[in-house]
Amino acid sequence: MLDPFEQKKRQILQDISGDKDSSKDLSPKGTIDEKCIPIIDLINSNKDMVTTSSCSGRVSVFIEGIKDHTKIGSKGNEGRWLYVNHSPDVHNWNANFEYEQDLDTFPDSPLTRFILYKFEPLILHVKCRDLASAQALYKTAMNCGFRESGINNNNVVAIRISIKLDVPIGYLREETPVLTVNENYLKFITKLSVDRFIENFKKLDQLYQAIEILNNTVEVAEEQKETKDQRRQRKIEEGMARRDGVRLAKEQKKLEKLALQNQKS
Amino acid sequence: MLDPFEQKKRQILQDISGDKDSSKDLSPKGTIDEKCIPIIDLINSNKDMVTTSSCSGRVSVFIEGIKDHTKIGSKGNEGRWLYVNHSPDVHNWNANFEYEQDLDTFPDSPLTRFILYKFEPLILHVKCRDLASAQALYKTAMNCGFRESGINNNNVVAIRISIKLDVPIGYLREETPVLTVNENYLKFITKLSVDRFIENFKKLDQLYQAIEILNNTVEVAEEQKETKDQRRQRKIEEGMARRDGVRLAKEQKKLEKLALQNQKS
Repeated sequence: MLDPFEQKKRQILQDISGDKDSSKDLSPKGTIDEKCIPIIDLINSNKDMVTTSSCSGRVSVFIEGIKDHTKIGSKGNEGRWLYVNHSPDVHNWNANFEYEQDLDTFPDSPLTRFILYKFEPLILHVKCRDLASAQALYKTAMNCGFRESGINNNNVVAIRISIKLDVPIGYLREETPVLTVNENYLKFITKLSVDRFIENFKKLDQLYQAIEILNNTVEVAEEQKETKDQRRQRKIEEGMARRDGVRLAKEQKKLEKLALQNQKS
Repeated sequence: MLDPFEQKKRQILQDISGDKDSSKDLSPKGTIDEKCIPIIDLINSNKDMVTTSSCSGRVSVFIEGIKDHTKIGSKGNEGRWLYVNHSPDVHNWNANFEYEQDLDTFPDSPLTRFILYKFEPLILHVKCRDLASAQALYKTAMNCGFRESGINNNNVVAIRISIKLDVPIGYLREETPVLTVNENYLKFITKLSVDRFIENFKKLDQLYQAIEILNNTVEVAEEQKETKDQRRQRKIEEGMARRDGVRLAKEQKKLEKLALQNQKS
C-alpha cells in the first residue's frame, strides 16, 4: 500500500516517463534537458524526494510582450523567442533570426518592446516527503553555493543560483528587431555565456555529488534505524522469554509444593 | 518575561536602531535604505516577524575580483565598486569613474576581469516566529509576484523578485576600465534601469499593502481567539457556579434533614 507521497511520486514519474524515448515533460521545450537526467534520476532514487521541474541552464533571446498588459522583461502577451539553446554551443546564435543594427538611436515610446539576451543557470524543483527531508535538501544545495534556494509551502525545494546574464540588446521597430550593440559585443556576451555554462555544469556536478552523499547518509540512517528496530524486537522477545522463564519457575515451584503437600497428606 | 523569539527580535531591533539618526545596519552602505523603512516598520509591528536584512533595489557597476580565486561575476578578491545608487536618479552614472571605450577588441585571456552593470530589485529577509507565520508571509509575497521567494531552515523568509539587469559592459585592461559599448547603449540600459526602478517600487507598494492586510488578519484572529478564551473562562466560571449551586442545595437539604431529625428526637 503506497502512502500519499509515494502515490504522488509515482504519478509524477509516470507523467514524465510516459514516453521514455522522448522524456516528455510540461515545459515549452517538451522534453527534459539531457544534462539534467542523471541528477533527476539520483534525486528520484531517494524515497523522500521527486523532481517536479528542471532546467539545466540555457541561453535565450526574446522580444518582450506588448506593453500595458505585460510585466516588464516578460514574454507574456505575444512576446516571442528568437533563440533558445540548452547547450554551450551558442556561437552564431544571432544567425538564427533577421535583424538590423542601429547603434545611435534610442527608442522613446513607453510602449517599446525590448529584446533581451539571457543566460539562465540550472534550476530544479524537488517535492519532498516532509519538512525534514526538504530542509536536508535545502541545506545541501545552499552548501554547494545555490544561495537563492528556498522551500515553499508544500515542501517543494527550489534550487537556484545567481550566475545570470540579463542583457537588453535591442528593441522592436515596427516588426523588425533592431540591435543597439555591434557584432563584437555579441561575441563578447557569447563568450561570457560559455564561461557561465562551464561554471553552471561545475555547480551541477558539485550538487550531484552532495546529493549522492545525502542519499547515502539517509540510507545508512535507515539501516541503523532498522538495526535498532531489530534490536528492540530482540529485546522484547528476550524480555518475554525472561518472563516466561520466571513464570515457568514459579509454576515449577507450585508443582513441587503441591507434590510435597500430597506426600504429607 | 520575553520568549526566545521576542528576545532575538529585541536584540535585532536594538542593533539596527542603535543610532536612530543614521539607521545603521551591517551592509556595506552601513544604513538602511530609506525606501525600505516603512515596510520594515510594518513587518516589525507584527509580533511574529522581524526583518534581518533588506535592500530596496539598486544600480551598481563593479569590476570582478581577480580570477582563479573568485567566483564568476563576483566582487570577491579585490573586485571593486565603480558605482552604487539606491535611487532611480542614475543618469550620468558613468561620469563617476574614468574609462576608455573600445568597441572593436575582444579580451582573450581567461583571467580577464569583466565590468558588470547591474540592476538588482528589492530583497528582504524576515525572521518569523514559527513555520506557520513564515508560510503566511511567503504566501503573501508569492501572491504579489515575488516568485523567487523561499523559506530557509530557520523560518527566515527571503522575499525576491526577478526584474533584473545583469549586463557585461567591459573589462579591465591593465588598470583601466575599457567599455565595449558606446554612449548610446549606456543611455539605453540607464533608461531600462529607471523603468525597473519604477516597477520595483510598484511591487514594493503592493507588498506593503498585502502585509498590512496580513497583519490585520493576524490581529483579528488574535482578538477572536481572545474572545473564545474569555468565553471558555466564562463557561468554566458558570460551570463552577452551577456546581457550587448544586453543592449548596445538597447542603441545604442535609441541614433541613438534620433539623427534621432534631425535631423528631
